[in-house]
Amino acid sequence: MIIIGERINGMFNDIGEAIKNQDPKPIQEWAVKQLEAGATYLDANVGPAVEDSPEVMKWLVEVIQDEVDAPVALDTTNIDAIEAGLEVHKGTAMINSTTAEQDKLDKLLPLVKEYEAELIGLAMDKSGVPKDSETRTAKAMQIIANADAHGIPMENIFIDPLILPVNVAQEHAPEVLDTIRQVKLLADPAPKTVLGLSNVSQNCNNMKLINRTFMVMAMAAGLDAAIMEANDEGLVDSIATAEILLGNDVYCDSFLNQFRKTS
Amino acid sequence: MIIIGERINGMFNDIGEAIKNQDPKPIQEWAVKQLEAGATYLDANVGPAVEDSPEVMKWLVEVIQDEVDAPVALDTTNIDAIEAGLEVHKGTAMINSTTAEQDKLDKLLPLVKEYEAELIGLAMDKSGVPKDSETRTAKAMQIIANADAHGIPMENIFIDPLILPVNVAQEHAPEVLDTIRQVKLLADPAPKTVLGLSNVSQNCNNMKLINRTFMVMAMAAGLDAAIMEANDEGLVDSIATAEILLGNDVYCDSFLNQFRKTS
Repeated sequence: MIIIGERINGMFNDIGEAIKNQDPKPIQEWAVKQLEAGATYLDANVGPAVEDSPEVMKWLVEVIQDEVDAPVALDTTNIDAIEAGLEVHKGTAMINSTTAEQDKLDKLLPLVKEYEAELIGLAMDKSGVPKDSETRTAKAMQIIANADAHGIPMENIFIDPLILPVNVAQEHAPEVLDTIRQVKLLADPAPKTVLGLSNVSQNCNNMKLINRTFMVMAMAAGLDAAIMEANDEGLVDSIATAEILLGNDVYCDSFLNQFRKTS
Repeated sequence: MIIIGERINGMFNDIGEAIKNQDPKPIQEWAVKQLEAGATYLDANVGPAVEDSPEVMKWLVEVIQDEVDAPVALDTTNIDAIEAGLEVHKGTAMINSTTAEQDKLDKLLPLVKEYEAELIGLAMDKSGVPKDSETRTAKAMQIIANADAHGIPMENIFIDPLILPVNVAQEHAPEVLDTIRQVKLLADPAPKTVLGLSNVSQNCNNMKLINRTFMVMAMAAGLDAAIMEANDEGLVDSIATAEILLGNDVYCDSFLNQFRKTS
């Protein structure tokens, strides 16, 4: 399981302040903390505190990679900010994200190719998040076909079937699980799959319980990656256990520690 | 989810003693306690304390149903004990269990038919627990075909794909999940599916974490029922959450309490 830590996001007050004040410390602390907990990628989102400009994304990537040796997911819809991030990023960067809209794909895929980056593709277009798994899968296939036409290896594409909060859009959860299965079944070679996990429990009671339960279900359906709260220990424990039960990691009595050491 | 409480089993010291001393109290206390926690069926197994005779099973069923209004799963390989239990059982009884061995099916299915009982069918024969999901599914289909030939409604058949402890037989867990999917897919109408859940974590570290993680995965694969520790609150919470995420129960902020009230 690829754990993408969600915490470096200007929507959180400490990070928003740090970005505004150009203070690297809180950002670098969260970078270390998330990697120690089991994350292997770090999402970076400027958030609402300052303008989402190329300069800020460049600064954010540099600040993170000055402290830790980990790939950053450039989380913005601003294509100039994405390009600025790619220019300074060391190693394989991740772009978060594109929809299946053709104009976006036409702009982003050449960048993905040029920088040998990874790309999160949202299974939606300008009409919004589809209601059923069939439409989600069709949108995913559109992204896959376009990526393939640009000669981008499938392992660099992460399809996000888009989970919505279960308290207001409960009927989406089974459709998302089904989309993960369908994408894995229909595309050969199959792309990776990813979820923005915390969405499922937004404004719900028992958020952590909902997050870890949906995570385990999604893993059983074939999920490869999640943007998530890497420092939720119960969630990481559930992931480590699911990896054992799916036969992806070998059981040993200390499997919970082992997962954190090797991830 | 049909929760079958596992606790009335002579292998536990308090129940073993109670059976030996013909003391109804501990048995009736566990009956109430399990139903309050969310169980709707109660497994009854004489265990090693006394001989597994028709008299003891009859006594056990009467003691349970004197206290609570719930179906009992007659958990024994002794066919005379099964018949004695069926004779005194009020409502629909469950028989736990048969294998796919023809001589067993020939003896048990007429009883299932006569008493309009439910039957757990283990996906194995005398050669033991199969290694892969194909053989498990084949054994399940044998039980299903035989039950059908006896005119037993499919909803009364519970196929158990047999989970083994993950610390010694890790490769079985994904096969069990696959068997649940296959049985649901191939049989039309499909039988129910059931697991002896606690087996998965026997002698493991983090037993409860392993139990609830595998339970959620199995539910996502289509599981209908589990013989389990009904008083493991974390496990019941996980089940309630999975029911919400699968769209089987409607989300409300008090969904954890709601599940216990309505199950």
